[in-house]
Amino acid sequence: MISQYNIPTRIFMGEGCVLAKAAELAPLGKKALIVTGRSSAVKSGALADIKAALDANGQEYAIYDSVMSNPTVECVYEGAEKAKSIGADFIIGIGGGSPMDAAKAIALLACQDIPRERLFDGNYDEKILPMAMVPTTAGTGSEATQYSIITNDARKTKTSISSPFMFPTLAYLDSRYLRAVPRNTAVNTAIDAFSHCVEGYLSVRANPITDALAREGMEAISSVFPRLAKGSLTDADRDKLLYASTIGGMVIAHTGTTAVHPMGYSLTYFKGADHGRANGLLLGAFLKSIENRCPERIGDIMTAIGMSGADELSRVLDTLLGGEERREKVTKDEAAYYASVAIKAKNIKNCIVTLTEAELYEIYLKSFGIKV
Amino acid sequence: MISQYNIPTRIFMGEGCVLAKAAELAPLGKKALIVTGRSSAVKSGALADIKAALDANGQEYAIYDSVMSNPTVECVYEGAEKAKSIGADFIIGIGGGSPMDAAKAIALLACQDIPRERLFDGNYDEKILPMAMVPTTAGTGSEATQYSIITNDARKTKTSISSPFMFPTLAYLDSRYLRAVPRNTAVNTAIDAFSHCVEGYLSVRANPITDALAREGMEAISSVFPRLAKGSLTDADRDKLLYASTIGGMVIAHTGTTAVHPMGYSLTYFKGADHGRANGLLLGAFLKSIENRCPERIGDIMTAIGMSGADELSRVLDTLLGGEERREKVTKDEAAYYASVAIKAKNIKNCIVTLTEAELYEIYLKSFGIKV
Repeated sequence: MISQYNIPTRIFMGEGCVLAKAAELAPLGKKALIVTGRSSAVKSGALADIKAALDANGQEYAIYDSVMSNPTVECVYEGAEKAKSIGADFIIGIGGGSPMDAAKAIALLACQDIPRERLFDGNYDEKILPMAMVPTTAGTGSEATQYSIITNDARKTKTSISSPFMFPTLAYLDSRYLRAVPRNTAVNTAIDAFSHCVEGYLSVRANPITDALAREGMEAISSVFPRLAKGSLTDADRDKLLYASTIGGMVIAHTGTTAVHPMGYSLTYFKGADHGRANGLLLGAFLKSIENRCPERIGDIMTAIGMSGADELSRVLDTLLGGEERREKVTKDEAAYYASVAIKAKNIKNCIVTLTEAELYEIYLKSFGIKV
Repeated sequence: MISQYNIPTRIFMGEGCVLAKAAELAPLGKKALIVTGRSSAVKSGALADIKAALDANGQEYAIYDSVMSNPTVECVYEGAEKAKSIGADFIIGIGGGSPMDAAKAIALLACQDIPRERLFDGNYDEKILPMAMVPTTAGTGSEATQYSIITNDARKTKTSISSPFMFPTLAYLDSRYLRAVPRNTAVNTAIDAFSHCVEGYLSVRANPITDALAREGMEAISSVFPRLAKGSLTDADRDKLLYASTIGGMVIAHTGTTAVHPMGYSLTYFKGADHGRANGLLLGAFLKSIENRCPERIGDIMTAIGMSGADELSRVLDTLLGGEERREKVTKDEAAYYASVAIKAKNIKNCIVTLTEAELYEIYLKSFGIKV
């Protein structure tokens, strides 16, 4: 089988990297639109650093800070209008997955007239504004992928916009920006990144390079699980989580996600479960259901994370996310409906094990302790 | 410390990838200069595949097949003249490190008038012809680096030409091309790639992403050592060696090499030792000499390769390269001279342990069993 590996993004790592590598922003253009949410860019200190970097370069900027969690189609079209109206040459995304994904869609829509009803159809032109990304959570990996995940109300789920031209030009990883992240967000985002590595390792599109990265990412994240559970992260832990989440992005940029992500989207859309939490609630049952069908790959994962199998991982995830009593309530009918949505997602076909709708339904039942 | 990660090269992997991904060559231009050595491109089948790919795309080409081992300044200027005279839009390098490194220098010199005496001075312009690389050995990793190593007669060593614009656009990894590689070349090139991973892991410029790649590369290569020694490689082994050597390139693209490579250059220049062999002859004594000064990093390496320490690795390398009785003869005076050359190489400063000229001398003495 032919596979490929390509991450064109230039990734800077380390404390103070935005200011130390401010000059790298200069070639992106004269005027930036900074895309972010309401607060984390400010609280984290990332926005102040980016402003200082742009000022040092003599670059102008405007701010679009209306990105909500799980950004909507409306939001990205509004942001694109803003980019066009100010004549932005480039886009800077600051925040977690939502602002960064919105920033990518805005960069695309600022250059191409794509009707709303065709936003998720793919086949975009090459035209896009260059982007720089500054993650303030360690989860999405969006700073190193070609994906932008946007809420798709027409299909009542989240859908990926994807284009090889949508890789950011620059990514700045400074784990000091994670210090302001609350415990639950730290847990949820870490589990999201962990799921990227695990799903990527179980993808038919995996290759030896993504495998190496995936094992590293899952090992790094799982090593931090105990302190994530206690809410006692160190600076070194945040460093690890941040580079591991970027690694997770580098993995799924090639492998795609598989079953957990599309299954999780319904939990987010209908139950309001945070994206990473949604993945974490499903991951244990998913691995358990395929454990016997790809024992070598699951064995590699367990070796990397130092656990005995899916059951042990489920227990660890329960500690992080709260056990059954704290779970979102899901009915049998809802589970059946969610399975019918997830089975249609294109990611499902990436899984090295072929899953049926009935199996997805079973995974939902097990994940939420639903008695048949 | 601020570090960065960026490999812009698009890497294709798998049997038949040149033909399957021939269309990727089309945007590089109308006319290619194929740069290669006398025989391996033909024997391996890589040249035939590249010709077929170019024919399928309707692209013209000429061939410059005069690249020798450890290419000279003369050679790359001659190749650049050829590129200019045919109006080449892009360069395709086919072969081991020598043809690929020559191809990169030719791509540079075809666009810039650099006087011979300033070839190694750096500060090149951005202008360079785009490149595609097809490795037919698994060692150099040149397909995924910005380096071109050329024989520097003025300084009686080999010197690196390096530019961020010198990354190839495309790399095609098809391990079938390695089937024609003789046992000794397979050993020497594998040790070269192994040394890239080990040196990269011991570089002050290492970062968590290069570390993950380096451990994967050294683990993959060392797992093949037993069959390399016997000359009984399987297709799966060649696959492993090829992607591991590309990984080694991705590592040193960020970390540089450290002490082993510059020390080895004198053995190549004065004793005609193959480049990979030269590294392998020095690697054990080098690791032994720093083992106590960075025990954690050396410990990581030994864990990755499943060995107890530098002594065990030295014995394994002896099995691959032949013990002392088969070594090149080096005198004390020669060792002292080589140490005086190596200590001036800029790579030496990359090593996480500061090495003195006296220590380099000691490493030469130990490597060649020279009694003081």
